[in-house]
Amino acid sequence: MPPYMQDVSDAGKGFSEGWSVTNSVNTELYIGGYGKGNTKWKNRLAYEAGMSAKDTDYMHIVNWKAAEKLFKAGKYRKVNGHALIPMEEMIAANALFLLPEAKSPHGADVSPDGRYVIVSGKLDTHTTVYDFKKIFSLVEKKDFAGKDPWGIPILDMKKAIHTQVNVGLGPLHTQYDSVKGVVYTSLYVDSMVVRWDYLKGKVLNKIPIHYNIGHLLTAEGDTVEPDGKYLIALNKLAIDRFTPIGPLHPQNHQLIDITAGRPMQLLYDMPLPLGEPHYAQMIKADKLKPVVRFAKKSFPDYVKAGKERVERNGNQVTIHSTAIRSHFSPEVIEVKVGDEITWHITNVERAQDQVHGFAVDSYNVHGSLEPGETATFKFVADKEGVYPFYCTEFCSALHLEMTGYLLVKP
Amino acid sequence: MPPYMQDVSDAGKGFSEGWSVTNSVNTELYIGGYGKGNTKWKNRLAYEAGMSAKDTDYMHIVNWKAAEKLFKAGKYRKVNGHALIPMEEMIAANALFLLPEAKSPHGADVSPDGRYVIVSGKLDTHTTVYDFKKIFSLVEKKDFAGKDPWGIPILDMKKAIHTQVNVGLGPLHTQYDSVKGVVYTSLYVDSMVVRWDYLKGKVLNKIPIHYNIGHLLTAEGDTVEPDGKYLIALNKLAIDRFTPIGPLHPQNHQLIDITAGRPMQLLYDMPLPLGEPHYAQMIKADKLKPVVRFAKKSFPDYVKAGKERVERNGNQVTIHSTAIRSHFSPEVIEVKVGDEITWHITNVERAQDQVHGFAVDSYNVHGSLEPGETATFKFVADKEGVYPFYCTEFCSALHLEMTGYLLVKP
Repeated sequence: MPPYMQDVSDAGKGFSEGWSVTNSVNTELYIGGYGKGNTKWKNRLAYEAGMSAKDTDYMHIVNWKAAEKLFKAGKYRKVNGHALIPMEEMIAANALFLLPEAKSPHGADVSPDGRYVIVSGKLDTHTTVYDFKKIFSLVEKKDFAGKDPWGIPILDMKKAIHTQVNVGLGPLHTQYDSVKGVVYTSLYVDSMVVRWDYLKGKVLNKIPIHYNIGHLLTAEGDTVEPDGKYLIALNKLAIDRFTPIGPLHPQNHQLIDITAGRPMQLLYDMPLPLGEPHYAQMIKADKLKPVVRFAKKSFPDYVKAGKERVERNGNQVTIHSTAIRSHFSPEVIEVKVGDEITWHITNVERAQDQVHGFAVDSYNVHGSLEPGETATFKFVADKEGVYPFYCTEFCSALHLEMTGYLLVKP
Repeated sequence: MPPYMQDVSDAGKGFSEGWSVTNSVNTELYIGGYGKGNTKWKNRLAYEAGMSAKDTDYMHIVNWKAAEKLFKAGKYRKVNGHALIPMEEMIAANALFLLPEAKSPHGADVSPDGRYVIVSGKLDTHTTVYDFKKIFSLVEKKDFAGKDPWGIPILDMKKAIHTQVNVGLGPLHTQYDSVKGVVYTSLYVDSMVVRWDYLKGKVLNKIPIHYNIGHLLTAEGDTVEPDGKYLIALNKLAIDRFTPIGPLHPQNHQLIDITAGRPMQLLYDMPLPLGEPHYAQMIKADKLKPVVRFAKKSFPDYVKAGKERVERNGNQVTIHSTAIRSHFSPEVIEVKVGDEITWHITNVERAQDQVHGFAVDSYNVHGSLEPGETATFKFVADKEGVYPFYCTEFCSALHLEMTGYLLVKP
């Protein structure tokens, strides 16, 4: 790749299967030096200005099936253990192209049928819909508008576009609806979600969000068959939405009803004390096949109920123990000072969600065991004394009594 | 304290100011040995059985003002740096008593006026309301029912009780309402909250919860002036309440309307992927006086905008830098291989919630800076090359351009 700053990518699918697109910034190759204290290139424009000087940056388009042929033909070298196909090989094999896109682009989202890719340049109010049919035709005919300094063919932006739509201020990411042509784009500066039609090229309606939406998602919106119905706005700021609790406000996730034929409607705010939300997916619950408990075979040191034991080999002591409401087995374990302890413990509960904690006093041993889970703790019993071990998850009315003793004798 | 297992405590207030109560379990002093693999005391009853053999355990009652006098009189010894008043001194000074309570007790909650303490023994369906007036009278008259093996006076349970109420299965913790006499107790086994009157000694009504409530809270319910209106049930299990996602289910917090004069009503479920909820408080929002940004004086290495600089002292390089949308100052910093870098960076934003991230490529430097916050990173520039540093929180439409370069020359 040329020394631009590559950003988000999306994979082709359906019509564009085997291809990928990647946005870039700073195709100006600008170097800053703004502000006090620079030790080089002083008193220049800030990066934020210099990197936004040109009106367009470059979408990088890769033909992965062509790249695969180069790989199989051995036309790569190993760099840090990774196979790297040189840029010249990619160019010669018609596998790498550049396509101008509105400057400082953010989202690049391929349509469910793979025919289109929607790109939003966050400093441009227009969102651009590129047509892979037109892109492939230009590539096929080698109809290039020029080359970049590294010799990569540049496609003609106007010839590759299906449409451009003025959606609002600061468009970022786009997600697809189950209704053909309907998409949702986050407007960071406007703090809105815009619903628009990328086939007909027109805005349908908007909903305000609180505040500064970055990413967004629709139900299965990145798949070949989006489910529609719901959208979640993943917002970066939540000023004046919730009770202030300090300099840092929560991240706000807003659930929005996007049922076709009526305005979008906010259903629910979910503030979370987590980091900034990025890409996320909503999938239908029937795709989940969760296990109720871990399988024995997941844990080589699984301890079967009734097979609990303490084994000694010199000063190596291995404890095979179990936990089930409301006792550990064994309950009393005597070792000697200096013994090296390997303690396997299995939660042998059959009940759902029946978690047990396990802590050994003074020996910095603490874990939480889900049903069927086995944990192993290793420590040296270097202090003589009587050390309770006990459950640390309230597991039944006799939780406080779920205890035992490690006796370390001199 | 005697070698029972002391559990939760509550401080007296108002009428009982200066006193405290502490529950205990295993006043049987039982030692188990159940299950396979015991290396001592084999084939005994499990702890859970042996520790529940007696019908009652002991509430420990401490007179802290009397203890303070002993401390001031020098009647203590230092253990691990803590002043410890010997049990005999406490007994001689009438400062330590035991009071029987239903076995395996859980909550001990003093009433807003300090006159009563409510204790729930989780193996007993009855909740006991003790009257401090009666307790103080017994203490005053030295009307004791006996002594424990360590010589601690035992008060007569029947003489200390205001009332006992059959509230349901597995009562744990109690919280107070703004309505005089009204309290809420969590019923772990029944999976319910019971509303009852501890002055009149009668159950009012119940609400089912999902599932297995442990702790609970009412608005300012632990204070001398509870606010009523809302209760949160802090539940330990959430089986079949939410879409299953694996062996571990979320913890479920349920918000319940406890407005007087009508049945309790569930308002809201809040599943959280956190550990088991324990004591928590709900306070009125007007008690919070949050800051919008950190004060300069909180950070000795605060960097003022316009005072950014790079200082060198031998191979010690100190960088004083700032971050504000959408640039760092300085943007270009050149150092030499082997330099020891101390990098102070201040987020000088005035806007609320305007967080910046800060990462230096390849040098394992990453932080998140709230408005007004200063962070310091130290590392040795041991690899020559060009290392971008950049913001990692989407801070504006020019976030991607908020970057700079650390040049490490040979």
